[in-house]
Amino acid sequence: MAEDRALTVRALLDTVRAEGRSTLTAPEGKVIADAYGIAVPGEELARDVDEAVAAAARFDGPVVLKIVSPDILHKTDAGGVIVGVEGAADVRAAFHKIIANAKAYNSAAKIDGIQVQQMLPPGQEVIVGAVTDPTFGKVVAFGLGGVLVEVLKDVTFRLAPVSADEAQTMLDSIKAAEVLKGVRGGQPVDRWAVAEQIRRVSELVTDFPEIVEVDLNPVIATPEGAVAADIRVILTDEQPKQRRRYSRDEILRSMKRLMQPRAVAVIGASNEQGKIGNSVMRNLIDGGFAGDIHPVNPKADDILGRKAYKSVTDVPGEVDVAVFAIPAKFVASALEEVGRKGIPNAVLIPSGFAETGEHQLQEEIVAIAERHGVRLLGPNIYGYYSTWQDLCATFCTPYDVKGGVALTSQSGGIGMAILGFARTTKTGVSAIVGLGNKSDLDEDDLLTWFGEDPNTQCIAMHLEDLKDGRAFVEAAQATVPKKPVVVLKAGRTEAGAKAAGSHTGALAGDDAVYDDILKQAGVIRAPGLNDMLEYARALPIMPTPQGDNVVIITGAGGSGVLLSDAVMDNGLSLMEIPEDLDASFRKFIPPFGAAGNPVDITGGEPPSTYEATIRLGLEDPRIHSLVLGYWHTIVTPPMVFAELTAKVVAEFKERGIEKPVVASLAGDVEVEEACQYLFEHGVVAYPYTTEKPVAVLGAKYRWARAAGLLGGGR
Amino acid sequence: MAEDRALTVRALLDTVRAEGRSTLTAPEGKVIADAYGIAVPGEELARDVDEAVAAAARFDGPVVLKIVSPDILHKTDAGGVIVGVEGAADVRAAFHKIIANAKAYNSAAKIDGIQVQQMLPPGQEVIVGAVTDPTFGKVVAFGLGGVLVEVLKDVTFRLAPVSADEAQTMLDSIKAAEVLKGVRGGQPVDRWAVAEQIRRVSELVTDFPEIVEVDLNPVIATPEGAVAADIRVILTDEQPKQRRRYSRDEILRSMKRLMQPRAVAVIGASNEQGKIGNSVMRNLIDGGFAGDIHPVNPKADDILGRKAYKSVTDVPGEVDVAVFAIPAKFVASALEEVGRKGIPNAVLIPSGFAETGEHQLQEEIVAIAERHGVRLLGPNIYGYYSTWQDLCATFCTPYDVKGGVALTSQSGGIGMAILGFARTTKTGVSAIVGLGNKSDLDEDDLLTWFGEDPNTQCIAMHLEDLKDGRAFVEAAQATVPKKPVVVLKAGRTEAGAKAAGSHTGALAGDDAVYDDILKQAGVIRAPGLNDMLEYARALPIMPTPQGDNVVIITGAGGSGVLLSDAVMDNGLSLMEIPEDLDASFRKFIPPFGAAGNPVDITGGEPPSTYEATIRLGLEDPRIHSLVLGYWHTIVTPPMVFAELTAKVVAEFKERGIEKPVVASLAGDVEVEEACQYLFEHGVVAYPYTTEKPVAVLGAKYRWARAAGLLGGGR
Repeated sequence: MAEDRALTVRALLDTVRAEGRSTLTAPEGKVIADAYGIAVPGEELARDVDEAVAAAARFDGPVVLKIVSPDILHKTDAGGVIVGVEGAADVRAAFHKIIANAKAYNSAAKIDGIQVQQMLPPGQEVIVGAVTDPTFGKVVAFGLGGVLVEVLKDVTFRLAPVSADEAQTMLDSIKAAEVLKGVRGGQPVDRWAVAEQIRRVSELVTDFPEIVEVDLNPVIATPEGAVAADIRVILTDEQPKQRRRYSRDEILRSMKRLMQPRAVAVIGASNEQGKIGNSVMRNLIDGGFAGDIHPVNPKADDILGRKAYKSVTDVPGEVDVAVFAIPAKFVASALEEVGRKGIPNAVLIPSGFAETGEHQLQEEIVAIAERHGVRLLGPNIYGYYSTWQDLCATFCTPYDVKGGVALTSQSGGIGMAILGFARTTKTGVSAIVGLGNKSDLDEDDLLTWFGEDPNTQCIAMHLEDLKDGRAFVEAAQATVPKKPVVVLKAGRTEAGAKAAGSHTGALAGDDAVYDDILKQAGVIRAPGLNDMLEYARALPIMPTPQGDNVVIITGAGGSGVLLSDAVMDNGLSLMEIPEDLDASFRKFIPPFGAAGNPVDITGGEPPSTYEATIRLGLEDPRIHSLVLGYWHTIVTPPMVFAELTAKVVAEFKERGIEKPVVASLAGDVEVEEACQYLFEHGVVAYPYTTEKPVAVLGAKYRWARAAGLLGGGR
Repeated sequence: MAEDRALTVRALLDTVRAEGRSTLTAPEGKVIADAYGIAVPGEELARDVDEAVAAAARFDGPVVLKIVSPDILHKTDAGGVIVGVEGAADVRAAFHKIIANAKAYNSAAKIDGIQVQQMLPPGQEVIVGAVTDPTFGKVVAFGLGGVLVEVLKDVTFRLAPVSADEAQTMLDSIKAAEVLKGVRGGQPVDRWAVAEQIRRVSELVTDFPEIVEVDLNPVIATPEGAVAADIRVILTDEQPKQRRRYSRDEILRSMKRLMQPRAVAVIGASNEQGKIGNSVMRNLIDGGFAGDIHPVNPKADDILGRKAYKSVTDVPGEVDVAVFAIPAKFVASALEEVGRKGIPNAVLIPSGFAETGEHQLQEEIVAIAERHGVRLLGPNIYGYYSTWQDLCATFCTPYDVKGGVALTSQSGGIGMAILGFARTTKTGVSAIVGLGNKSDLDEDDLLTWFGEDPNTQCIAMHLEDLKDGRAFVEAAQATVPKKPVVVLKAGRTEAGAKAAGSHTGALAGDDAVYDDILKQAGVIRAPGLNDMLEYARALPIMPTPQGDNVVIITGAGGSGVLLSDAVMDNGLSLMEIPEDLDASFRKFIPPFGAAGNPVDITGGEPPSTYEATIRLGLEDPRIHSLVLGYWHTIVTPPMVFAELTAKVVAEFKERGIEKPVVASLAGDVEVEEACQYLFEHGVVAYPYTTEKPVAVLGAKYRWARAAGLLGGGR
C-alpha cells in the first residue's frame, strides 16, 4: 500500500515536472490527497444527469455542481456553478440549468460533463501545511484558519515526519487551543482526524523531497472529522545540498581526542609576549595540562622552555590536537602537514575566513581537512577549555573551576562573557568551546560528545544558526534524556536575524520554527545571554524534581507575593497544601503568619523557624521543590540563614532525600556572601531578585518534563 | 441636553430601583442608550399591520419582527420571531403569520403588538463595556467579539470617563488591532463610531455610580458605523466607601515637613542595643541628620548623650516628625500626645496591626490621627530615608549615596532588598520610604511630593495594591510629564494576588486592568524586582532621548545580534542608516566590518576605532541613542574602553549634546570594574548581559513617550 501510493505520486510528479510545471492542478492535488489518505471532499465527473444524481446520492448531504469544459474558464460567470444542491429532483434541475447556462454563455463550448462535489459542513477552519525550512528541511505547520489568526500569527511547527502523538501535541501548542476543545458550549473537534491530516501531510513531504510546500487551507474540522477544502502542492527543482555527515562513533572518537588529548601541538607558538601563539602556549602551561605540549615554529629552537619543531610533521609520537595560532593565509599549508601527520583535530584560532568574506579560503581548508580526515574547530575562535584535563587551549586566560557545565559559543565576544561570568560566579565548568565559523565541527558534534562525557551534567550553547537543524535535533534528542541542553538562539527578532546575517553570513531561520522545533527536541531555550549563563551555573547543582508540587517558604511576605508571580510566570504550580501539612506548618509559625502556600513565617522569626519549616518541606514526600524567601533581620542574619539552610539540605542529602531548593535573599549587602555560600552548598540563591531563583527552577522543570522524568512532557 | 439625558436616566433608574430590580429590561436599555447617544438598532412597537409597514419603511434595509405579549415569554417557540423581512408585502405577510402563530400557540394570550426592529448589517463584532473595579472604580473595556477573543482574552481597559482620543487608542491597544484596519482586503471599520460608543458608555457610568456594569455585546462595526446589537445594564445598591482625601497643598505641606524636617522625636528611644528604638536613634545620629533629635522615653534621662523626655508633649519647640519605636499596644496613647503636640507626621515602625489581623487597633489609630490632623506613615514599616537631609529614620543602617531616585516599598523585605542593592551598586538615592499597611499616607501622597522634589529625578515604587487607584492615576499623570514613575506591581498573577491577599489583606485587582490603567497613567511598569531596581539605578543618570533612532556600535558581532534582539524586544527602533552616515562609519572600520546597524567595528580594533565611531554617533544629530557592545581584547582593555567612552560622553555633554548611551561589556572579570566606572560617569553599562542595558534604555523611551517628549505617545 505504502509502495502503491509512492508509485502513484511519483508518476504524477514526474508528469508534472516533464510538463515544466511547479504547481499542481486541483485534480492532481486530489490524486495525491487520495494516495496519502488526506481527507478531501468527494467529487465525481458526471457525464449525464443520471450519473450526477447517482454521484450526489453517494455523498452525504448537499453537493456543488460545476461545469467541466475546456472552453469555459470562468465557471461562475457562465452560470456554471450551483452550490447546496440536495436530493435527486434538485440535482436534476441544477444539472439541466447549468448545461443551459453554459450553452447560452458559449454555444460552441465542448462540455465534458458536470463535476459533482461534496459540500463540507460548517465547522472550525484550521490550516495544515508543510514548508521546507532552510535550517530544518521539511516542517509541518498547524494553526486555526481565519483572519484573526493571520493577524495573531498563532501557528505551530514540527519537524516532518510526525507521529500521530506528536501531531496531537500540535493541537495543544497554539494559543487558541481552547477553541478546538469547544468553548461557549461548542462541540470539540475530532482531534484524531485533524492530527491525521497533519501526519499524512508530513509523510508526503518526507517521501517526496521535491515537494517544497503543501497547503491544506482550510481544513474544516467538526466533531465528526476533518476534511481539507483545498489542497495546494508546490514543487521545486533544487536539490538540497548534501553535507558530509559523520557517524556517532566517528564523532565520539575524534571528540574524545579533542577533549581528552594526550599531546597538543601549537602551530605558531611564540616567545613573544602579546602574540596569540605566546598566549596559547602560556595558557596551556599555566593551566597545568599534564600531557605533552609541542610548540611548532620554524624560527625558534625552544619556546617557553620546550623544544620547538620546524614543522608539525617533525613532532615525535602521536598528536591529538593541533592548535593554530598563525595568520589565515598560512593555515592551508600547515593544515596539509597536520593531515599528513595524522592529527585528528585542528583548532583554528585565526580569523580572516568566511567572516571577513574570504569564503574561498575557508572552502579550501575544509577540502584539505576532508581529504585527510582532520576535523576542524573554528576558524575565528578564542580556542577551547577542557577543565577536567586542565587544558586551556585559548588566547584568553586559564580557567580552573571544575564542574558540570559545558558551554559553547558561536561568537568570540559571547565566549569572553562566558569566561568572565564563570570566573566571577565560580561556576563549575567542564568545558568552554568556541565554534566561530563552524566550518566543520558544530553543535551536534559537541552535543554528541558532552552527552556521553561523565564530567558534563548540563550543556549550554550560544548559537546564531544551525548548519543542519536535523542533525542538531537528533543529537539533542539523544542527549536530553540524560542531561539538560540549554540554547541561547541569537537573532530571534527580525533585526537580530539581520544582524546575524551580516555577522556570520548565515541565513537565520524563522524564529517561530526554531522555537517550536527546539522545544520538540527537548531543548531549554534561554531568553537572553544572562539567562543562559544563570541556567548554566544553576542547573548542574540542582537535583531533579520528582514532581510538580512547589512550596514557597518566606520570611518576607512581600517576597512571597513576588515569588508566587514568578512561579506562575515560569509555568510551575504552587502546591495546594493538604490540611494535615498545613497544620504541621502552622505549628512553627506565629498565629498571624499565613500558612497555605506561600508559607509566610513572618519577618521577625528566629533561625529555628526557618530551620523547622525547611526541614518539614524536605521531609514531606508530597513536596517536590522549595522556594525560600529570606528577609534580613537582626534575629536571623544572612549567614546564619545560609548556614542553617545548607546544613539541613546536606543532612537530607545524606539520607538520600534531594529536592531542588532555591532562595531569594532580600537584605543588605551581607546577603551577597550568603548567596555565594548557598550556591557552593547546593542551594541556588540570589540577592535582590525574586525572579532569577524561580527562573532557573523553571528551567530545571522544563528539562525534567522534556526528559520524560515528570508528567506533562512533550 | 446633558441635563435632559441625566434627568431621563435618573427617572428611569429610580423606577427600576423602586421596583427592587437590579437589571434593566431591553426597552429600558434602549431608553438609556438613546439618552446617551449609544447607537442601537431602531425599533418600534407596531399595533397593527400598517404601523408595522410604516416602521419597517423608516429603517434602512431588512427588519426583524417579534411578538410582544406578556403571556408569551418564549417568543421563538411560539413562532413569534421572523428575521430578515424586507419590503411592504413581506412585512405584511410576516405580521399576519406571527399573529396567527401566536394565537395557535396560546389562544388566550393578550397581544400588545409586534416589535419591528432594524436588522444590523454583517460586520466585525466588537465588545464595549464598563465595569466597577475595586481599585479604579468605573473602567471601560473594549475587545473584539467572538469565541477566539474570549479564549485569547484580548481586551483593553481605561479609566472612565475617556475622551474621544483616549477611546481611539483603545482600538490600537488590543493584540488583534489589525483586524479593525481591514485585513485580507477587508474594509476598515469606522473607528470614530466605535470610539464614540466607548466614550458614551464611559460617560454613562461616570454620571450614574449605581450602574456597576454595562455591556454592549456585540457592537457590529462596519465601514459606515458601529451599532450595539444588545445593551445590558446592571445596578447596585452599594455605596462606594468615601475616603478622606487631602488637597494637593495639604499633602505638599505635611510631606515637606516629613521629608525635610527640622526636628524629629523618637518615641521609644532606647539605650539598649538590639532595640528598635536604639537602632533608630543611632541611625539618625550616625547618618548625620543636622536637625534636632529628641528621644522620648519615660524611664531614661538621656539617650545616646541627648536629653530624653518623659512624653513627646514635654519636647520644647516645634517637632515635624514623631518616629514610633514602641509596641503596637502603646501606639494609640502616644499618638494622642503627638496630636496634642501638633506634630504633623507620625512614622509608625511597629507591627501588630492589620497585617496580623488587628484591624480594630489600626482603625483606632487612624481615627486618632484624623481627629488631630496627624498623617501616618505605616504602621509595620522599617522607617524611611531622606538622603539629602542625611536623615535615616529606620532600624536598618544608614545610607549615604545621594542621588536622583526615590524608592518606596509596601513590604519591609523588599525595602531591605532595595537598601542592599542600592548600597552594592552605589545607586544615587533621594529617598527610601516604607509604606507598610498604608493606614494613611500612600503612593499618591509620595508621588505628589517627589514630583515636586528637585532632588528626585525618578520615582520607583513597589506595591501590592492601591488604596485609591484614581488618586494614584491623578498623581501619576501630574508627575510623569516631569519625571519617570516606575511601578513594580506585585501580585500580577492569580497565585501572586492570592499571596498578596494573605499578606496585606488587600484585594488585588485584576492585573489586566492594572496593566492598562498604569499605562494610561504613563507609568513604566517593571516586570520584576530586579528590573525595578535597575531602572531606578539607571534612569536618573540617562539623558532623555530626543528621537527614536537607536544605533548599535559593537566590537563583538555576537553581541550585536543579541543587542538587536533586545532592541526589538523593548519596542525600540534600529535606525535605518542613511548612505552618507554609513559611509562616514565605514571610514573607521575594517573593510570586512559591517556598517549598517549594528555598526560592527569587529573585535580586534584599537581604542581609536571605538572612540571615532562613538564620537560620530554622538555628533550626528540624526542619531538619538547609542547602544555599545564592547569585546574585551588585549588591544582595547576594559578600563581603556570605559575611560575613552566616559571622556567622549563628557566632552559632548560640555558642548550641550546629551544622548542616552548604554553599554554591554563582554569579557573577563575586569569588565565589572569598567561597568562601575562607566555608570559613575553617566554611561549605563552592564557586564555579561546584552539584555539589561537595552531594557533600561527601553524604560527611558517608554517614559519619554508617556511624557509626550517623543512621538508615538499615549
